[in-house]
Amino acid sequence: MTIAGRQQQAHSGRIRLGMVGGGQGAFIGAVHRTAARIDDQFELVAGALSSDAERAKLSAREIGLAEDRTYSSYEEMAKAEAARPDGIEAVSIVTPNHLHAPAARAFLNAGIHVICDKPMTTTVAEARELVDLVGRSGKIFCLTHNYTGYPMIRQARAMVASGELGTIRLVQVEYPQDWLTRRAELSGSKQAEWRTDPKRSGAGGSIGDIGTHAYNIAAFVTGLEIEELLAQLTTFAPGRQLDDDVQILLRYRGGARGMLWASQVAVGNENGLKLRVYGTEAGLEWTQADPNYLWFTRFSEPKQLLTRGGAGARAEAIRVTRLPSGHPEGYFEAFATIYTEAARAIRAARAGGTPDRDVLYPTVEDGLEGMLFIEAAVESSRKGSVWTRLA
Amino acid sequence: MTIAGRQQQAHSGRIRLGMVGGGQGAFIGAVHRTAARIDDQFELVAGALSSDAERAKLSAREIGLAEDRTYSSYEEMAKAEAARPDGIEAVSIVTPNHLHAPAARAFLNAGIHVICDKPMTTTVAEARELVDLVGRSGKIFCLTHNYTGYPMIRQARAMVASGELGTIRLVQVEYPQDWLTRRAELSGSKQAEWRTDPKRSGAGGSIGDIGTHAYNIAAFVTGLEIEELLAQLTTFAPGRQLDDDVQILLRYRGGARGMLWASQVAVGNENGLKLRVYGTEAGLEWTQADPNYLWFTRFSEPKQLLTRGGAGARAEAIRVTRLPSGHPEGYFEAFATIYTEAARAIRAARAGGTPDRDVLYPTVEDGLEGMLFIEAAVESSRKGSVWTRLA
Amino acid sequence: MTIAGRQQQAHSGRIRLGMVGGGQGAFIGAVHRTAARIDDQFELVAGALSSDAERAKLSAREIGLAEDRTYSSYEEMAKAEAARPDGIEAVSIVTPNHLHAPAARAFLNAGIHVICDKPMTTTVAEARELVDLVGRSGKIFCLTHNYTGYPMIRQARAMVASGELGTIRLVQVEYPQDWLTRRAELSGSKQAEWRTDPKRSGAGGSIGDIGTHAYNIAAFVTGLEIEELLAQLTTFAPGRQLDDDVQILLRYRGGARGMLWASQVAVGNENGLKLRVYGTEAGLEWTQADPNYLWFTRFSEPKQLLTRGGAGARAEAIRVTRLPSGHPEGYFEAFATIYTEAARAIRAARAGGTPDRDVLYPTVEDGLEGMLFIEAAVESSRKGSVWTRLA
Amino acid sequence: MTIAGRQQQAHSGRIRLGMVGGGQGAFIGAVHRTAARIDDQFELVAGALSSDAERAKLSAREIGLAEDRTYSSYEEMAKAEAARPDGIEAVSIVTPNHLHAPAARAFLNAGIHVICDKPMTTTVAEARELVDLVGRSGKIFCLTHNYTGYPMIRQARAMVASGELGTIRLVQVEYPQDWLTRRAELSGSKQAEWRTDPKRSGAGGSIGDIGTHAYNIAAFVTGLEIEELLAQLTTFAPGRQLDDDVQILLRYRGGARGMLWASQVAVGNENGLKLRVYGTEAGLEWTQADPNYLWFTRFSEPKQLLTRGGAGARAEAIRVTRLPSGHPEGYFEAFATIYTEAARAIRAARAGGTPDRDVLYPTVEDGLEGMLFIEAAVESSRKGSVWTRLA
Repeated sequence: MTIAGRQQQAHSGRIRLGMVGGGQGAFIGAVHRTAARIDDQFELVAGALSSDAERAKLSAREIGLAEDRTYSSYEEMAKAEAARPDGIEAVSIVTPNHLHAPAARAFLNAGIHVICDKPMTTTVAEARELVDLVGRSGKIFCLTHNYTGYPMIRQARAMVASGELGTIRLVQVEYPQDWLTRRAELSGSKQAEWRTDPKRSGAGGSIGDIGTHAYNIAAFVTGLEIEELLAQLTTFAPGRQLDDDVQILLRYRGGARGMLWASQVAVGNENGLKLRVYGTEAGLEWTQADPNYLWFTRFSEPKQLLTRGGAGARAEAIRVTRLPSGHPEGYFEAFATIYTEAARAIRAARAGGTPDRDVLYPTVEDGLEGMLFIEAAVESSRKGSVWTRLA
Repeated sequence: MTIAGRQQQAHSGRIRLGMVGGGQGAFIGAVHRTAARIDDQFELVAGALSSDAERAKLSAREIGLAEDRTYSSYEEMAKAEAARPDGIEAVSIVTPNHLHAPAARAFLNAGIHVICDKPMTTTVAEARELVDLVGRSGKIFCLTHNYTGYPMIRQARAMVASGELGTIRLVQVEYPQDWLTRRAELSGSKQAEWRTDPKRSGAGGSIGDIGTHAYNIAAFVTGLEIEELLAQLTTFAPGRQLDDDVQILLRYRGGARGMLWASQVAVGNENGLKLRVYGTEAGLEWTQADPNYLWFTRFSEPKQLLTRGGAGARAEAIRVTRLPSGHPEGYFEAFATIYTEAARAIRAARAGGTPDRDVLYPTVEDGLEGMLFIEAAVESSRKGSVWTRLA
Repeated sequence: MTIAGRQQQAHSGRIRLGMVGGGQGAFIGAVHRTAARIDDQFELVAGALSSDAERAKLSAREIGLAEDRTYSSYEEMAKAEAARPDGIEAVSIVTPNHLHAPAARAFLNAGIHVICDKPMTTTVAEARELVDLVGRSGKIFCLTHNYTGYPMIRQARAMVASGELGTIRLVQVEYPQDWLTRRAELSGSKQAEWRTDPKRSGAGGSIGDIGTHAYNIAAFVTGLEIEELLAQLTTFAPGRQLDDDVQILLRYRGGARGMLWASQVAVGNENGLKLRVYGTEAGLEWTQADPNYLWFTRFSEPKQLLTRGGAGARAEAIRVTRLPSGHPEGYFEAFATIYTEAARAIRAARAGGTPDRDVLYPTVEDGLEGMLFIEAAVESSRKGSVWTRLA
Repeated sequence: MTIAGRQQQAHSGRIRLGMVGGGQGAFIGAVHRTAARIDDQFELVAGALSSDAERAKLSAREIGLAEDRTYSSYEEMAKAEAARPDGIEAVSIVTPNHLHAPAARAFLNAGIHVICDKPMTTTVAEARELVDLVGRSGKIFCLTHNYTGYPMIRQARAMVASGELGTIRLVQVEYPQDWLTRRAELSGSKQAEWRTDPKRSGAGGSIGDIGTHAYNIAAFVTGLEIEELLAQLTTFAPGRQLDDDVQILLRYRGGARGMLWASQVAVGNENGLKLRVYGTEAGLEWTQADPNYLWFTRFSEPKQLLTRGGAGARAEAIRVTRLPSGHPEGYFEAFATIYTEAARAIRAARAGGTPDRDVLYPTVEDGLEGMLFIEAAVESSRKGSVWTRLA
């Protein structure tokens, strides 16, 4: 029960944070704000919460931002905050996908660290530019692939890395949902509207929204790189413009094979991200909806149900665990861990150094890889679902 | 609690049954014998339990067969039994795959009904011949795709057929095992030996052994026909000759899409056949290891856990249910249902008629479809995993 | 996969079996007959299936009994069968509770082994007489506490016996159902009628029907003896004569404590027998509806999910296992194991010897203990739920 | 997906909060602080985190408290803060049990609202005094029975209140843990030390630590009042002074019956709070470790698995839900809901009014009831486990 103590950190002043997007009616903005608060590492002090000036103002007032730090454009905000002595040190970008890259550029150019929602951009070209810019800027860029913050995902990664699974042979990853079974985008769901609109989401629908999470979690846990893939993107809901289901076969470097399925029309699935990894020595299984558990089986031994904070927990998992086993942590806490990891990196940068080796957050390179994955999948599917190499 | 009563049947004499294969050390032979006994429809009276004469004799004695009805070849048995006034009316063929077709031919030609294990043959050509022969013979041919005997699979089929799921969009079927993770065929497992030997199993390893079950259960429940598939067969265990893992993308006629995964090297999976079907209106999910449950969700309604014999059970499920809900039925009972369905058909044939419309067992045509599936998958994979039409 | 082979037994002639009770409309009669068939150790050749002569005849015809071995009273049957050279060797008694003792006496006195449903009698006095009679007769008396036939219950018992749990501290056993939530006995359910009728069930309702199973399974697994108990029997359904819910605190000899809950009005529970045992070193948990699993946790180690036939299976479990892991066995198979154990004992008796030490079935002494338990619980409750010693 | 929006609240300045207890090494202090942050309703500005002056100072510095608002006694803190114009408006008391009452008195007398951990006091007499004092003070007193903050517990309560379960017949509540299986209090666990020490915990061990949670959650959901109970408190670990296991039979006013089990020596249980409620019309089941689910079954209908934020969610649950279904919330969020409910009440008090009717948090009266429950249980057990009326 001393685990919680590990979260106690020297409190050398909170990091001043701004936010782009996340105004009234948005889902993910409130999530980011809560995540940023949980470990008390950030203080939200500025925002361009909406491109609509009035809505931006109302949204800002609602969450207690000072009026003079409420902006209606990210360009204006980047400039003004960079000029203030007490300006923001980092910004969270939580807009629809097409604005991620331009907003990120504005803040990086203004010398401000960036925490950005995924998918990172809408094209690979933009992603490559961003990689370059981050490199030149020397700033932290953290992509909120929040599922990598779950302790049992850290546990899984550590078990694979230490060889407990032997050589990985198979990766089965899936992410079924059902909320787009019907055309929610026609009945007033803002979430559905922009996610099914190629102008705001890019060329991928479900592949960008959730397929990329599935891809990322598999990569994060296994460390495997995709050599080529074959994707079948389908739009089941009549009249929808983007895919609402994606089925992919994966060939990893080194001979492992994988299957990835993401769907937004699989009735009865709420948010069913699930990862299974099988090696020559052992297998493991994790489900996002029940994130405090990890099934682990060594060949010819009994199945084990590992629990967050319980017996068998590894240091890599314990360092991101806040509560004793049996006290469930959830989505917010995993998200908060991404923020806290970013905070560690930002504090190290403040101090002119580099973060400790155990600090772990999705980077701009991970974002580029995600975009390569999306682009290859879209291309494979367009060509009739043929094998396609990742660029 | 009157469900059990439905199993009570006019007992107009048991059907005289013989068996080919299933001698000492065999797994599936004992399963067939138990299945045949459960509903008291058959009496096992003859056998060619092994091609080894001595082993055939010992095996027969062990299970109480009369010495004069113990044979060491199926040809001899077919001939001798056909000549007896009290000869067998039906035969169970439970040999390795390569003997299914020749044995079936021998008994059909002798006017004896056939109950045959799957996959039906080792080639499509053999399967086509068998279809013809069965047609000409007028005999019953029942293929023991035993998983179709589970009440909740009957329930699922009935729900799909009645339109409760709407138009089917997605089929996710998988059958992971782990018993061939290492080369069990080198350490004395008879089961592993013949299943990994192309001479006895045919061109498919895991695809024939378990992939065909996965294919069949999906077809049985959804009624969908595969238009084309793309398969990736992999042999992970070094030195093994046949595939021990198979990943398939499915395109069904009418636009539904599917994924099929079968593996014998997925550590931690014992016998994980699982079917998920998603339509425009509802979704369902069933797992073989917990066969008395069926998850069912209508879009935007709470998830329901249907139970065998419980609320919401349909007539199609109740007629193959023996016990009240909460009293688990298992693998043997599902297998017994196939035997009992075959018995109904045989009794109808005895009486010169046709079985009732609700009698349901896998036929020689289902066997042919299974072989077309296997052959297409093997061919697709050999060509580098390309889209391949089912012949 | 050679486990199934263990069920193969020298087939030195099936045991000739009769049945008392179990005519049309009965639930448990068909279960006993199926259980007796599964391992092919018995042949049902005679029956007094109903006290109604006409119904007895129809029922017997339906299941294929010869007319001259169809009786309408057990006294007649015991006498006639004892006189035949091919008379029955054993009888199954599957009547309502009040007939168990008189029927058992008739057959034991006729030199016929008895397999009897539970609870054994309706009073402790009757139970004591039966213990004496069985002792004098030298015949096998097997009480069908069928849940003790589940392999994972055998596994649990073996683990406790071998000390893996350390000293047992706590027993939590429950058996919730919901089928008597409303007064099913008024709407034509024969099962409900006799179970809620003190004339046919004895002084206990749910305590005798299912509480005794809960008691028995706890005793079977732990080997603990109850020193005293405190019971609260409640009748929730207005107008019902017997208890439909029972809550009991248990004090075991040696200091362990227990709680037992059985209910027939717990909506949402079908047949929820569940046993949990906690010792100084480890704990285990088993649920009847999912009988192929056993949770096992050593203190400060990961939870293990043991599976029937899987890794960690003990010899005591394997000897009653028919199928490889992942192929679910169920209620019938557990019941069949009780029959097969009885068959082993009967064959040993045939040969003038005693059964092997590993043969394990509930005896007449277990039946007496069950009656002592019921009687103490009824008495405790009648006195206002006070602590009551087992006689 | 607009659910998250409901958490957005007019941000009329955070409530200034102090804390007593919760210094380095404490578990629950960090939990309270995180809970207070999640919805951004409080700002922690003062603390008496330890009675050890040095440790108090270090602990305060660690979490960023100003030095001049760091105290080493709650008396001093109450006095000093009450005198400041920017003094705390509310205080969280997170000390061992014996200090709850004196600390609460000090702050109430200073005109400061109190948020207090459970059990409220160590005696009923103290609890009664506190009820009086709260009444006289006109201040908010919120007891952190945090499990009442879970959305599915709110859902359950609403379903019972609206009559969906009919008349409640049975309550089954349990709270097994295993962390005190061995004498952790001898090997340096501060948590174990004070919890097993009658001087700091009061007369109850597990009954006060977790039994009271079990009692409270059952009362919260069902609204039933206990008329009498019979308790058996056991100390299994040799040499321990307080109970580590408690088994209780409950008789509710109106005829419902209940069983309550709490244990800290049940190996394999981490934090297994579980509530089951059965009525004449329906039943429900909830497990704290998987808090986003609620099983609900109407008699003779299929079982439903309700999910937080999913289909069937009631207004009472939705108003405390932050994330869409499938995105798990956990222990912190439930705890945060208690804080946010308290914040609503405090804001209403600030404004000179009363909180909205839907604001729901455990009050000082609930705390008194909890103490009556503990005292009756201890007394019942001391007298040999006899029926005891709640005073």
